[in-house]
Amino acid sequence: MIKCETIDEMRKAISAFRREKPDGVVGFVPTMGYLHEGHASLMKRSATECDLTVLSIFVNPLQFGPNEDFDRYPRDPERDMALAKANDVDIVFMPSVQEMYPRPIKTKVLVEGITSRLCGASRPGHFDGVGTVVSKLFHIVSPDRAYFGMKDAQQVAVITKMTEDLNLPVSIIPCETIRESDGLALSSRNVYLSEEERKQAVILSQALDAASELLKLEDMTADRLVSELHRIVKQAELAVIDYIDVLLFPDLTEPDGQMDLSKSEDQLIVAMAVRFGKTRLIDNRLFSRKEVACHV
Amino acid sequence: MIKCETIDEMRKAISAFRREKPDGVVGFVPTMGYLHEGHASLMKRSATECDLTVLSIFVNPLQFGPNEDFDRYPRDPERDMALAKANDVDIVFMPSVQEMYPRPIKTKVLVEGITSRLCGASRPGHFDGVGTVVSKLFHIVSPDRAYFGMKDAQQVAVITKMTEDLNLPVSIIPCETIRESDGLALSSRNVYLSEEERKQAVILSQALDAASELLKLEDMTADRLVSELHRIVKQAELAVIDYIDVLLFPDLTEPDGQMDLSKSEDQLIVAMAVRFGKTRLIDNRLFSRKEVACHV
Repeated sequence: MIKCETIDEMRKAISAFRREKPDGVVGFVPTMGYLHEGHASLMKRSATECDLTVLSIFVNPLQFGPNEDFDRYPRDPERDMALAKANDVDIVFMPSVQEMYPRPIKTKVLVEGITSRLCGASRPGHFDGVGTVVSKLFHIVSPDRAYFGMKDAQQVAVITKMTEDLNLPVSIIPCETIRESDGLALSSRNVYLSEEERKQAVILSQALDAASELLKLEDMTADRLVSELHRIVKQAELAVIDYIDVLLFPDLTEPDGQMDLSKSEDQLIVAMAVRFGKTRLIDNRLFSRKEVACHV
Repeated sequence: MIKCETIDEMRKAISAFRREKPDGVVGFVPTMGYLHEGHASLMKRSATECDLTVLSIFVNPLQFGPNEDFDRYPRDPERDMALAKANDVDIVFMPSVQEMYPRPIKTKVLVEGITSRLCGASRPGHFDGVGTVVSKLFHIVSPDRAYFGMKDAQQVAVITKMTEDLNLPVSIIPCETIRESDGLALSSRNVYLSEEERKQAVILSQALDAASELLKLEDMTADRLVSELHRIVKQAELAVIDYIDVLLFPDLTEPDGQMDLSKSEDQLIVAMAVRFGKTRLIDNRLFSRKEVACHV
């Protein structure tokens, strides 16, 4: 396994691979590090499907708001390197902030519409930062396939749209959310939770399970579903709801609030962001036609 | 010479070249067609410096404002093909609007700051359209070098900044403006001019020559230079000034209006946009330290 800390090293490593294997497929797993089994599942899939797997570890300041957790975002490069090696990663790209942003960046890659709801609404500018850094990383690594976890469903929608709109020569591969045994979606931010918060945090996945049942009921509208889910999440007394929303996927537009969702032909996403103390957790689930949970 | 009308054809042609010549250098000349000697100079330079030259011809609707000349922008594909062939172009990429924008585009690539002055101010959204289409074209053609004329100096500044900020693996090569024998900068839009307008249009390059002399004077400030140039351009009675500006290049920020420019250490750009009837012409000149005109 090679570790590249500069853009130049990274480009040379990819060129060398392409020269050796002109038909080789390069898989890419962009992350902010502090890797967990969710990331491991992406690395494993890339290693299975591609001839070379590149993992990037970069906590991108551009996608954090001024009052967010950039400085205290958890980091553990040594453990990350071990996990990367154990999951058959070939190259780890771990640039510094100075390497990625040597001077103030004036260029923004932004996706309109799709970013106005959910985390785009509660974290203004977040997805501009995501689009910009992912497009930089794609230009540096030039992968054929890039793997993203569906826990960040809006991120997947934004990056897929950006890739199509800008003709980036990369296939975006959405991968299933990995969960703890009680259902909590894996996240690097779970480490922030106190013991009691961790216990109560299971309410997110429980609410999504409930949504699956509620969507089987006739006359279930988006408005009613959202209000039922509010009621359920509030049962966890430490939970402070940021948003709970039901939208069409992947356009992230609103369904008619009064429409009977059991009759909907569209793919729906039920998504939520909930705070426990200082920690903001997100989770979501896709539902295709006839309320069958869709595991992407 | 090959002509590609689809993105897929274009990508296959480049892949075939790369496979055959892994060390080959691909040069790219993006244009809106209706080619003239200015474009020819870019094609010639690419053909000299690169192993493969790609010319794109695409009148990009995204960079025209609602009241601008998209519909009447001059087009002559047959003459363009002949000129491309005569200048050793290997591949002409000539996609339809439908091919480039099969559905409404939601992604924008924009460069802040540098686009707030000059044509960015008089043509709102213009450079967002330029940045977006150039980044699409770069992703489709994947050139090593891209050639742009300095007549569109702000475009060169914007694309250079975008390329650096987003780590696009392309070298941007600015090329000298080509002029008629009387000094008028070549432009596809010159064809719009009536005989009398064409005669008077020489005032732009005459004003830039005058700027060169004025900059040799001691105590010449940006404010004074701009007002002298206004006086000169107004001598052409059909001229309606859109802007005349003196800025630092390539950041396109304002110098201190009261500073003695003959003492300036910075590279300056004197740039103007002037209307003759319905036709808007632009021209500019760079001046490096000590008032020596800098031919990029």
